[in-house]
Amino acid sequence: MKIDLIPGGVTAAKGFKAACCAAGIKYKDRTDMAMLLSERPCAVAGTFTTNVVKAAPVLWDRRIVKEVKAAQAVVVNAGIANAATGQTGMEMCAKTADFAGKALGIPADYVLLGSTGVIGPNLPIDRITAGVAAMAGTLSDTPEAGTAASRAIMTTDTVNKECAVCFELPAADGAGTVKVTLGGMSKGSGMIHPNMCTMLGYVTTDCAVDPDVLQQALGEVVPDTFNMISVDGDTSTNDTLLVLANGLAGNAPVAAGSEGYALLREALFTVCRDLAIKMAGDGEGATRLVEMRVTGADTRENARRLARSVVSSSLVKAMIFGKDANCGRVLCALGYAGVEFDPAAVELWLLGEREDLCFYKDGCVQTFDEDLALAILSEKQIRFCCDMHMGGEEATAWGCDLTYDYVKINGDYRT
Amino acid sequence: MKIDLIPGGVTAAKGFKAACCAAGIKYKDRTDMAMLLSERPCAVAGTFTTNVVKAAPVLWDRRIVKEVKAAQAVVVNAGIANAATGQTGMEMCAKTADFAGKALGIPADYVLLGSTGVIGPNLPIDRITAGVAAMAGTLSDTPEAGTAASRAIMTTDTVNKECAVCFELPAADGAGTVKVTLGGMSKGSGMIHPNMCTMLGYVTTDCAVDPDVLQQALGEVVPDTFNMISVDGDTSTNDTLLVLANGLAGNAPVAAGSEGYALLREALFTVCRDLAIKMAGDGEGATRLVEMRVTGADTRENARRLARSVVSSSLVKAMIFGKDANCGRVLCALGYAGVEFDPAAVELWLLGEREDLCFYKDGCVQTFDEDLALAILSEKQIRFCCDMHMGGEEATAWGCDLTYDYVKINGDYRT
Repeated sequence: MKIDLIPGGVTAAKGFKAACCAAGIKYKDRTDMAMLLSERPCAVAGTFTTNVVKAAPVLWDRRIVKEVKAAQAVVVNAGIANAATGQTGMEMCAKTADFAGKALGIPADYVLLGSTGVIGPNLPIDRITAGVAAMAGTLSDTPEAGTAASRAIMTTDTVNKECAVCFELPAADGAGTVKVTLGGMSKGSGMIHPNMCTMLGYVTTDCAVDPDVLQQALGEVVPDTFNMISVDGDTSTNDTLLVLANGLAGNAPVAAGSEGYALLREALFTVCRDLAIKMAGDGEGATRLVEMRVTGADTRENARRLARSVVSSSLVKAMIFGKDANCGRVLCALGYAGVEFDPAAVELWLLGEREDLCFYKDGCVQTFDEDLALAILSEKQIRFCCDMHMGGEEATAWGCDLTYDYVKINGDYRT
Repeated sequence: MKIDLIPGGVTAAKGFKAACCAAGIKYKDRTDMAMLLSERPCAVAGTFTTNVVKAAPVLWDRRIVKEVKAAQAVVVNAGIANAATGQTGMEMCAKTADFAGKALGIPADYVLLGSTGVIGPNLPIDRITAGVAAMAGTLSDTPEAGTAASRAIMTTDTVNKECAVCFELPAADGAGTVKVTLGGMSKGSGMIHPNMCTMLGYVTTDCAVDPDVLQQALGEVVPDTFNMISVDGDTSTNDTLLVLANGLAGNAPVAAGSEGYALLREALFTVCRDLAIKMAGDGEGATRLVEMRVTGADTRENARRLARSVVSSSLVKAMIFGKDANCGRVLCALGYAGVEFDPAAVELWLLGEREDLCFYKDGCVQTFDEDLALAILSEKQIRFCCDMHMGGEEATAWGCDLTYDYVKINGDYRT
């Protein structure tokens, strides 16, 4: 399918503007709030943390996605998570959305909210509303405005994360095709673990599509993208992924099951996977991205479980940091993934840029060239591959190494 | 129930001898093999790793526990795990047991085996048999011999782990009571995670008890002891816990459901919990033991899940290392434990030696005295407690902090 990667992020699609500001919520000398606005109401889809403890903005957004099914703006802050804040936290959400709605001339119910940072403290509502007022006056549809917004929502992230694609869909008026654009940004570095929609992610598109169809596409894309990364095994209270579609591309509305649906889903998959991999590679303290591809599994879900188990293993992660080819740990992590298999049938490979290395087959860890293993483990991206020899399903998961800096960052996060 | 803690370990009970030697399997200048021998055949019970990839000695022991249901000796080596070694690994087991059986004058089927260390390499069988021959000539029933054996099986452990208790049971001849002794040793520091029988543990007793009754008691004790600790979330390929009972105490054989059974189970619980807590506190790189007690849960299994989730959280572990009272992370870890609950009903406490601190209730992280929090987080043992307000069940889990040294130890474990 023809999906073209293009520069840009949340302002790539027609009719979307972004802004940011330094509201002084927790960080000094940097931006810490971002705003997105569509020039007209959008179909909206979203997926949220599976944590029983859900932050106030997660509860707020979930209601909008489920009941309102439309939105026009997003307001995000970094520094404080507005989680474990009880009724006060919900009131903060209502006040922020109300204030933003008035500033932007839209209903409060059209304002989605996102927060990331320390669990517990209340949001300083005066600074939040001052930030909203400042941003409402500086919204811009330039690529630079999108990039600045993606920087403003960072916490322990070391790089901002953006991605955009475009593709063609039949025009609404039946005269040929129109260009549709889909772009996004995300943030996330710690408290990241499979089985949810990880961290904050915002995707905007000018595609014309019904919210239910958009939600279906998102549901099909997330299991193999955001749910296939892990940094530290901790599922956050704030994870949120939202997609806003304003229809300005002028395409005929995408119908479920159509060729256009497959294209939209592929575009969404491309952007979500890109943003997810960027988060995994920028895991707290990480020096390297780790990829685990499982092939030959009996079911897709088992392939996912096996792949996730390996990238989540503290021992595998520490071994990659140390460039120590203690590869039996990869087999061990497959073994406790909760999937039955025959250890004697499995083959395990370490994939290098120039040469690959088989380190386990026929039930035995193989004797291998330690110099070659060290050379491969010194590459920027570490790629493992295994063939379960059980069937035809496959999946890939992404993670990062476990380093001294992860411990340092999380030993004194608040200070 | 009257269970007395006494000094000693695997040689505390009547009729058990131990030995160790420096076989040169991997480590230099230290002992690395241990042997236990009972003067007569024992009833045996065991529980093993749930990892699909099981080391050769696990498969060997499991057959003896399930089919032979008796044993008289144990041979353990540290340095190489004999895991992912295929058919060769099983042949090494058969050769070792055969050699040990001949050296000790017992059937090879009465010899249990244990290995711990690097996954992959084959055991150097000549050194193993030389070690067995040396140990067979130096067996002793002194406390010192038991202690030396508990040191010989260590890998990254920094302290050896022993525990013993005694209690009274009705005599076999009906004339009053006899003293029954039960003692054990364990090793384990990394690749330790709930949902299995963790690492290597050996318990000996002179109690007269049928193997099926012994297995039942072990099955009742393990879920709240060895299965309630976590160091790093990695379930090993080699986890083994064995109990040998030779009957030399002269008690009337313990019947299931009797008062004597309750006493035996309590004694086994006491020793297993002590050994498990010692492993958690000696986790790789750890500076502090962490205890999480969950009360007021609706079911025991949910209480266990919630408690384990907290001690397994990388973010909670790093926060304890950094003495940073970022306590929302404890709530977050309860939230992704896989148990439904009402966050507003939960109360969370940090327990200090002199004063306790409530850091979460009524749905909100509380404002607390940071100096008091720092003082409590500076104690040698960190204790969290939560009341779920859902019912009357409780459970406790143990873990340790996540430190730079964990990363260092596991970044170059093989070298």
